[in-house]
Amino acid sequence: MKIITTPEAMRAWSEAQRRHPDIRIGFAPTMGALHEGHLCLVRAAVHENDVAVASIFVNPTQFAPNEDFDEYPRPFDDDLAKLEAEKVEVVYAPTAADMYSEGYATYVTVEGVSNGLCGASRPHFFRGVATVVSKLFNAVKPHRAYFGQKDAQQCAVIERMVRDLDMGIEIVTLPTVREPDGLAMSSRNKYLNAEDREKALCLSKALFHAETLLRNGERNPDVLISVVRDMMQDVTIDYVELVDSATMAPVDTVAGPVTLAAAIVLPTARLIDNVRFDPGAQQT
Amino acid sequence: MKIITTPEAMRAWSEAQRRHPDIRIGFAPTMGALHEGHLCLVRAAVHENDVAVASIFVNPTQFAPNEDFDEYPRPFDDDLAKLEAEKVEVVYAPTAADMYSEGYATYVTVEGVSNGLCGASRPHFFRGVATVVSKLFNAVKPHRAYFGQKDAQQCAVIERMVRDLDMGIEIVTLPTVREPDGLAMSSRNKYLNAEDREKALCLSKALFHAETLLRNGERNPDVLISVVRDMMQDVTIDYVELVDSATMAPVDTVAGPVTLAAAIVLPTARLIDNVRFDPGAQQT
Repeated sequence: MKIITTPEAMRAWSEAQRRHPDIRIGFAPTMGALHEGHLCLVRAAVHENDVAVASIFVNPTQFAPNEDFDEYPRPFDDDLAKLEAEKVEVVYAPTAADMYSEGYATYVTVEGVSNGLCGASRPHFFRGVATVVSKLFNAVKPHRAYFGQKDAQQCAVIERMVRDLDMGIEIVTLPTVREPDGLAMSSRNKYLNAEDREKALCLSKALFHAETLLRNGERNPDVLISVVRDMMQDVTIDYVELVDSATMAPVDTVAGPVTLAAAIVLPTARLIDNVRFDPGAQQT
Repeated sequence: MKIITTPEAMRAWSEAQRRHPDIRIGFAPTMGALHEGHLCLVRAAVHENDVAVASIFVNPTQFAPNEDFDEYPRPFDDDLAKLEAEKVEVVYAPTAADMYSEGYATYVTVEGVSNGLCGASRPHFFRGVATVVSKLFNAVKPHRAYFGQKDAQQCAVIERMVRDLDMGIEIVTLPTVREPDGLAMSSRNKYLNAEDREKALCLSKALFHAETLLRNGERNPDVLISVVRDMMQDVTIDYVELVDSATMAPVDTVAGPVTLAAAIVLPTARLIDNVRFDPGAQQT
């Protein structure tokens, strides 16, 4: 396994791969602190492509000054061991100084889909995400890139960006990976103390309950949102919203693919989760 | 000469070229209405690379609603004949519908360098330029791209963007091409009536005079700007500024490469021009 640390060296490797007409590059971008959710993305990148790249970069531009950039876990050697076990060809791990050198000034913004949900409470978050993913894509030059459904709004932002900027990259979204009790895996789950870990369960439980109502025919967003809110009375709710899965705009009724998304703020961590539902897929 | 009209087809052509380890793609992006300034860029793209692409696309997102998008000249067949004569391999001429399809939402902004000068009077202009150039670069995948020094601020924005987003494209800036009497060539010169064509001459004359003063040792921005303003009393001045050539920020004195840039507004057209001066280059 090769570790590459500069955009120039990463580009050179990818350009050499792309000279072979049949080689497909799979890419799983991460911020490290790898859990089973990340490893599912990595495995798909390895198995569905000829060569696979995983990146580890804790991106400063997607954290606000009051957020957890400094505390974000960085178990770099453990992460490398996990990626080596998955038979990744290249780990791209640039430094912040290489990614954002002096005078850095360029940002990619995706309007509409970045608004609301996490975009409302974290105003610069998706600008940071779209910018760093553009940079990673330009260096890694993947044919396919893998993201987790847990970050539903991020997936929608990246899909919109790739289409709008003619990047020609296939975005693959894989289902959320969960702990046995239902909690969505997240690097930030490490922040939870025992009390908050227990309380956090209401998030997935409430979403699963609403998902069952959707499957049984409930189509009223107000009802679905109320049900979720009622089941999360012991925690601080950031948002609960029923949105169009592609545009992330709130819907009046459930006509096409929708995402029921929620965020809660516990004393030791902020957590997000969501369920998707497609009434068309159900009918077939 | 091949004419390609969709981002997908353009990408496919470029990806096929890039499978050859020795082939370099040169690219001259234009809005058509080609004059000798464009053709110098095209010739360099042809002669300095193995294959050359020129694009023709009048980009709606860099025009404000009150600007000349509708009137902008579009002599498409003449342009194609000129590009064929220069032995361009591919003309990339996408439609606005292909470039900005329904729900389009992604923009590239370059802070700092986009402010001031033309960015002050045309607030969305450089966002439109950076966005469309990103899209063109993603489709054409050039090794080198050619721009004219006449659009000095545009060159600085593109250079900053390419560096910041790790695009790995060499940006080549070629000197401004002028009419025999000094007027910088521009597709918008066609808008000028006889009276304005005569008046327009003061712009290059004033800049050339200030350039002579710079060569002779004048280093005071206020003096240089006043000289230019004094020589343009018969026209409406948008701006006259002495800026750092890379950052486009006004300078207090002439220590490194600077650009003396000016814009004037005549009844029939708005015109820009500039001269560059590098005190270091002079000393060697």
